[in-house]
Formats: sequence, structure tokens, C-alpha cells
Amino acid sequence: MTDSTWTDPESELLERIRDRLGGESEGEDEDTTAVLATLVDVEGSAYRRPGAKMLFDADGGGTGAITAGCLEDELQRAATEVRETGQPRLVSYDLREDGESDVWGLGVGCNGRLEILLEPLAESLRPAVTAFDEGRDVAICTVLADDGPLECGDRAYYHPDERGGRFDADSDPADWPTDALDRPARELVERGRGDRLERTLDGRRLEVFVDGFVAPPELVICGAGHDVAPVVELAAAEFRVTVVGFRGAVDLTERFPEADRTVTTSPARLRDALELDDRTYAVVMSHNVVDDRLAVDELLRSPAPYVGLLGPRERFEEMRAAFGAEGRQFTTGELERLYTPIGLDLGSGSPYGIAHSIVAEVLAVANDREPGHLSARDGPIHERVDVADGRE
Amino acid sequence: MTDSTWTDPESELLERIRDRLGGESEGEDEDTTAVLATLVDVEGSAYRRPGAKMLFDADGGGTGAITAGCLEDELQRAATEVRETGQPRLVSYDLREDGESDVWGLGVGCNGRLEILLEPLAESLRPAVTAFDEGRDVAICTVLADDGPLECGDRAYYHPDERGGRFDADSDPADWPTDALDRPARELVERGRGDRLERTLDGRRLEVFVDGFVAPPELVICGAGHDVAPVVELAAAEFRVTVVGFRGAVDLTERFPEADRTVTTSPARLRDALELDDRTYAVVMSHNVVDDRLAVDELLRSPAPYVGLLGPRERFEEMRAAFGAEGRQFTTGELERLYTPIGLDLGSGSPYGIAHSIVAEVLAVANDREPGHLSARDGPIHERVDVADGRE
Repeated sequence: MTDSTWTDPESELLERIRDRLGGESEGEDEDTTAVLATLVDVEGSAYRRPGAKMLFDADGGGTGAITAGCLEDELQRAATEVRETGQPRLVSYDLREDGESDVWGLGVGCNGRLEILLEPLAESLRPAVTAFDEGRDVAICTVLADDGPLECGDRAYYHPDERGGRFDADSDPADWPTDALDRPARELVERGRGDRLERTLDGRRLEVFVDGFVAPPELVICGAGHDVAPVVELAAAEFRVTVVGFRGAVDLTERFPEADRTVTTSPARLRDALELDDRTYAVVMSHNVVDDRLAVDELLRSPAPYVGLLGPRERFEEMRAAFGAEGRQFTTGELERLYTPIGLDLGSGSPYGIAHSIVAEVLAVANDREPGHLSARDGPIHERVDVADGRE
Repeated sequence: MTDSTWTDPESELLERIRDRLGGESEGEDEDTTAVLATLVDVEGSAYRRPGAKMLFDADGGGTGAITAGCLEDELQRAATEVRETGQPRLVSYDLREDGESDVWGLGVGCNGRLEILLEPLAESLRPAVTAFDEGRDVAICTVLADDGPLECGDRAYYHPDERGGRFDADSDPADWPTDALDRPARELVERGRGDRLERTLDGRRLEVFVDGFVAPPELVICGAGHDVAPVVELAAAEFRVTVVGFRGAVDLTERFPEADRTVTTSPARLRDALELDDRTYAVVMSHNVVDDRLAVDELLRSPAPYVGLLGPRERFEEMRAAFGAEGRQFTTGELERLYTPIGLDLGSGSPYGIAHSIVAEVLAVANDREPGHLSARDGPIHERVDVADGRE
């Protein structure tokens, strides 16, 4: 554990929590020295949104990020106290109180008021790890304060996909106001956001942080050529990456160590071999036109919202002609999910440049964005100058 | 050296060539067992363009990529012969001759005719490495065949930036038809392309591969917070990355091991401390509004074509107000080079998601592209369906 792990991707944070929790049997190999910090409330501008997490290890190392470095030393000290007492604790920092507030007031992420829950890493986080591993969304509901029977750190889970929404709690389920939490939990999972909720029930005041945890989407890469490695490498932080080799491809796990899984199958069996759903983003780059054609067919028949195909548009038109001769026509809905030539127009033809173009496109589609310059969204800056200062 | 290095970035290939060449004194620690392969001619579709390079080590490992895996085993065998004879050699592969041409004909990168120069790694490549290290462009001119005095593998360099263009050659400069090569060499460096040229001079027929080698652009990141690490990591393959820390930042080299260099200075001294030119792309993310403001001022006064500033547009407007109070106005030309909020709109707020957004934007600007979907450039696919098949 060194400083360089501070900005590891969220997926790595979850994996580390799983490592610390140890085996499935409660307590087995459990590392009880790790302390989890979760940002539960923000006023003013902040680097991360509520739900951002960091894991503090006893040796001073950490994983994840809550701020861009402004508070980590303070948090490390507070985590040490939590480690010693074993009790969850809410801490708050008001960086606006700083005497230098004029200087720091516009520092991105280093101002505003932050409230952070610190807790010893405990078995109550296991369902979050399980949901992550299984690619399921879940709302992690954590008590921050209660006039009633619950205590800070007590936890329940809301599973939106089970029987129209189901709550699970370690403590007595009757203590949880599930009726009052059901709708916000569902909404927060849908939006992938966290929020601090206050509910007053028969005079009892309860504060809960509801953390909409969205499992990372899956990137299925059909192909195992040398050009696949940069795509895996660049996508690993944001996606659960599956590399699919055809024609008896071997050694995939060794060749793509950063992939979450590797599968060898035939392109016509993709839907059988993989669980393709509306969170599956697929990249087809086997460099074999027959395999690519069969893979595109399979993927477009699945609910995958993105099917990117490497190669020029003409190559797909040839495939389409071959399909047409077999009586297979593509619907408009299918073609709207097909991106060929794959990628954003970033202009770099190197293997890494192509991989950047692919991963950026998949991110934009997965997040439902039009991938232009953010600076252009508000209009060009220089037009404002023209108005304010005359044409310079 | 393992298989996983096949798709290392070009910059890594140059670094490996430098390692193999050893110290500056000729022959010192030189590893004469490595064989360099350069793609010099392509007919038909291919994965890489002429100029793509691979380095073959004696232990069977390699760096770089010429195809997506279709030819590497063949090339490894040919490289072994070149290693044994010590003589450069041109090899060609016509994948269209394959009996399965109907099957493979549309495989991306696995068809067409490829001509590849194999040569023992030699001191004649040192000027290319030096140009790479110094961030200078150069055209590497390599003889493929000559009726006259030159031999396959003989080499000259064209330096476009020196005295309006200057040729350097190991062999007798009079043997080189510099007048006939001057203009194409200049053009190929400008375009960053390689091309095989045939020149007939007084009955002498000369074939030269002119490889326009463009040094990687520099990415200067002003800031040393935890959020800088993912930007360095994602940009390392395509840029020479410099991390600049302010306020006496220490341990930068340890904290950003993938950076090519780290510098600690003050934001108002950026132009003195760094060589900022029209190949400098700058990202400002110190999270301190004063430092960011001074850095933006310095960078916009430099020729850097891209200055990206993290944070909302309002943060820059506040900076601009502060500048205005000091009498500093920005010109339209300056503001056109300023991108704030930084990044493409990819929709991911995680540290890696933000880094993807930044690196993709810098790539697009560096390559002068509008970063939309490549698939949209030719018009949507489904419109073609509507015409061809009626509205499905």
C-alpha cells in the first residue's frame, strides 16, 4: 500500500474492501484494521460527490479519493481514532472557515463543508461487495443518527431488481422505515447518486445516507489481437472488462492480465456464452471478417446498447450485403446501436490512440452524452469577451 | 520481455531502442541482438501505416506492432535470420495470395501486401533517438535499394528545423540525392507520415523509405494532487508528460512514476522553468485558485495551443474579473486556446473518468479533430437503410 494507490479506480476500492473482509464465512481472514470513509454530505463546491469513498489502512496507505488531497492527512488521523475506538463516527470539515477563505474559496474541491462517515470495515459491507461482483445495483442505507433504536453505522440494503424492490437489514427490519426509504432509494440507484435523508416518523428523527451503488458496466471485447491490450488497459478503471477469444484462443488470462475475465467461445454462441444485457457495451475487433460478422449479428440481437465495430464503414456494408443474401435485415433500432467506424474522432492512429478513441466513445454512450468539448456547452468564451470588452 | 509488451506505445519503442543502443559512445553496452522491423510499403488495407515499427529481441519478445497479430510469428522467424546474417533485408507478405482470400479479404489489417525492412539495431538509429529525446521532428531516410553506391539500410537524416532544412548522412553525403529528397522529406515530417520513394538520377535508380518522425507532443500538467495520477497514467502512451508542482512540492518523481519528468517551480515562472512551444499542451489542475490563475496567465502568454483548466466556467470568470482588476485582458486568440471546463463531455465523474475526458480532449486538439463519433461522419447508418429497404 503506497501513496500511489490513492486514486485507484472505484472498482479497485471495492476489490480491496473484499480483500479486507476476507472469505465468505464471517470473520475469516478479516482485516479489522481498515477504516472506510464515505463522503455523505457536501455544501459548496467539492471535488467528489456524496458516496465517494476512501479506505484507510493501518500502515498509513489508502485507496480511493474524497478530495484532491486537501483533507487526506486530517482524515488519516481521524481514521486512526476510529480504528482505536472501533466506533463509526461522523466528522465534518468546513474549509470555508479557513482564514484564507478568499484565497481558497474557489479552489476546486478544497472548499465547502464536507461531512464524512468513518467506520471500521465490517461484515455489514459484504452485500455491497457481492452486488459489485454480480454486477447488480444496490442502495446502501447507512444510519448517521437516530433518536430511535438504530445507531450510527447500522446498515440496510435496498435491492431494486428483486421482487419490485426489497430491503435487507442486519438489525431488526422493523426498526427501518422502509416505506419512507423505498422511493428515494430506488431513485438514487437509478441516478447512481448518494444523498443524506432526514425522516421524522412519529416524532423519531432518523438520518440515513442512501448510497446508490451502480455496478460498473461490462465491456465485452471480441478479439484477442495485440491491439486489444491497450483497450483493456485504458478501460479497466471504468468497466468490468471481458475479453472474448474465438477459434480456440488460449492463454487469454495471461495475455490480458487487466481483464476481469476472459472467455473462449465461437462468435455465433456469444449470447449463450455471455450474459448480455442492457449494461453490456461490446467492441468487435477480431480482425476476421467472418467472426466479426457473426459477432455483430449476435450482439445486435442482444439488448447491448453499444456495439462498436473496428474498420471502415465499407467493411460493414460488405457484411450487410452478406447478411442480406442470407435474408438477415437489420432494423433501424439495431443499426442505431451499431457504431462503425468505432470510436471518437481523436485523430491518433497508434494502438493507444485507437484505444483512447474507443474507450472515450463507450464512456460517452454509457453516460448518454454527446461527446463534444465541455467548454463549448456554455458557448465559446471569446464571444463573451466580444460583448464585454469590444472586439479585441 | 514478454508478449504483453507487443502493444507498448511508440514512445516505449523509442526508449527500448535507446536502451539497446547503450551509452552515447559508440558500441558502449550496445545490444546487437535486437532486430528492428519497419513497415515501408502497404497495398490494400492494413492495420498500421508505413513507418510502424517493431523491435524483435533475441529471446522471442517484441515491442511495438505492425499488424494486429497476423504476421508477427513470420516476422520473428525472419528477424532471427537477419540477426544471424547481420544484414538488413526487405521482406514482403502478400496476404491476398492466401487461398482463403474470400474469408480473409476484409480482415482489418490481415490482408493487403506488406513490405517490411528488417535490420540489426545499429548506431545509425541514434539520431532518431536523440530527436525523440529532444522533442525534435526528423525524417529518417533509409535506402531500400540502389543501383549506385548506397546499400540497403544506409541512412541519412533530414532535420527540418535546422537552417531551413539540413541533411546528415553517415555515408558520403555526395551519394545522397538530397535535392530530390528535400521537399518530400519536409512534407512527410509535416504530415507525420512515411512513404517509399523511387528516384531515378542519371540512370541510377534509388529506392528510399522516408519516415517522417514526429516527436510526441508534451503534456504539461500543473498540479500534483491525487487526481493528477490518472491523467499521467492515461496520457503516458501518447505524450511526453511533465508534472509541475507548485509551493515546493516534493517527491513528485516517486508519486508520478509514469511522468517523463517532474518540475517544482512557481506558477508565475512557468515560461522560465519550462520550454513552452507550439507542441505544448497544458492542463491546469492545482486546485488552488491563485496558482491556477497565475498558471493560466503564463500559459496563455506562451505559444501553447491548448490550455485546459479544471473547474466550472464560473471559476474562470472569477479569475478573469481578478485579472481585469489588475488591467490584464485576454485576447480572443488567447481565449480560443483556453478550454474550461476542461475535457470532453463523457459523463463520468470518477477520477479516471475525468482523466479520460481530459486526455481525449487533448488528443483531439493536438490532432486538430472535432471529437464526435466517427460513425456519424459518414451520416447515420440507419438512414441508408431507410433508402435501401424502406422504413423498417
